Formats: sequence, structure tokens, C-alpha cells
Amino acid sequence: MAKAKETKPAPGRFAYEGLERAIHEKARLGIMSSLMTRPEGLSFNELKELCDLTDGNLNRHLEVLSEAGLVTVRKQEGTGRGRTLCKISSQGRTRFKEYLEELERVIADAAAASAAGQRLSAT
Amino acid sequence: MAKAKETKPAPGRFAYEGLERAIHEKARLGIMSSLMTRPEGLSFNELKELCDLTDGNLNRHLEVLSEAGLVTVRKQEGTGRGRTLCKISSQGRTRFKEYLEELERVIADAAAASAAGQRLSAT
Repeated sequence: MAKAKETKPAPGRFAYEGLERAIHEKARLGIMSSLMTRPEGLSFNELKELCDLTDGNLNRHLEVLSEAGLVTVRKQEGTGRGRTLCKISSQGRTRFKEYLEELERVIADAAAASAAGQRLSAT
Repeated sequence: MAKAKETKPAPGRFAYEGLERAIHEKARLGIMSSLMTRPEGLSFNELKELCDLTDGNLNRHLEVLSEAGLVTVRKQEGTGRGRTLCKISSQGRTRFKEYLEELERVIADAAAASAAGQRLSAT
């Protein structure tokens, strides 16, 4: 007789397709999070400090985010030295929220796995 | 008179140093999550299907995880064709949990930012 089967997770169950690559990279995740906290934008130097990045790295990651339509980067000319203002775009906000929903699934999966592991070790 | 200052976040506040690179990559995050759900291990083919990866990609990512001490990969010879068994290591379990704690901080930061944004738009 066939023995009782465990419920088998669906193919691709752990592919986490919702983790958009442009956002998921660690430094860019930090940049997006910083910009979420400041809808009015952050200067290049503020971002650099908050995310602990070099000029070169921050530039490179802002380029990726900006090409993906997630942020806007604008040189502000004015009194004194120019200042670069970085802002999350409205599309960026929406996509970051979708990204976070997938991240919550990752955590929920791990929590479920951890609970199952505890049940196993208790038997 | 100096106007009331916003509390300024500390330098590196959004660097998320706890997001270990070996784990954070999207495919490897899926592999680690799958293996967490199955302490007794998963076969190469099961992992491939769950994470929706090609042979080449899965091989490459398992190599990274195994070199980092996060998983073990063992060829099982036996009756019939060989089978490759992949398991999360005990160190891998601990480090994955630490990784998840940092991930929870990312989500908490975004939730706080989102709540602050709603307060702003309500005024």
C-alpha cells in the first residue's frame, strides 16, 4: 500500500521571483530603504554616509536604480556648490513595497521551517 | 535660534552589514530556505525543481554555499544510480537565522518609513 505522502511543495516554491534584482543587491537595498524614510530626498553625501558606501560604489548603484526607474538623481545648481539630490520615484515606492512583500514570505517560510524542525526534534 | 532638529540616523544605519553575501543572493536564499524546511536534506533534483534552477546554476550556488560552510553536499552511492544529498549545516542554520534577523530589520525600517510617510501626507 502507498504510504501517506507529505504534502509536496510546488515546483519553483522557493524561487522567490518577486525579489527584483535591481533592489535585492545589498547596497541598493540600503539605498532604497534610506530613500523610503525620506520622501523629500537625500543628498549624495547623506546617502553615502547612511549606507557606508564609497563615491564610486554609490554612483554605480544609483545608476542601476535610476535606469530601472526606481529613483531619480538630480544635480541642483544654486548658491554655493552643487548638490545632488536623490529621491525614490513613485514607481520605486510601489515596486519596493512589492519586493518587501516577497521578503516577508521568505521570513514566513523560514519561521514555518523552524517551527517544524522544533516539532521534529521534540518527538 | 536653532530650529528643532530631526533625530539624525547614525552613519552606516542602512548598511545592513548582517546580510551575509553568500546567503543574500536570490537563488542561494531560495536554496537555504528550502534546506531549512528539510533538516534531513534534499536531493540535487528536488532542490533544482523547488528553486527553479538549471543544473549549472544550482551547482555553482551549492559550491559557494558549501565553501562558506553553510551546506554539505554528498554523493550517495548505493543501489541504482547515485544521488546527491544536500543538507544545511548546523553553522548554516545559525548564520541563516542571523541573516533573517537583519532581514526583519529591513522590513521594520520600511514599515516605519511608510508609517512616517502616511503621517506626513495626512498633515
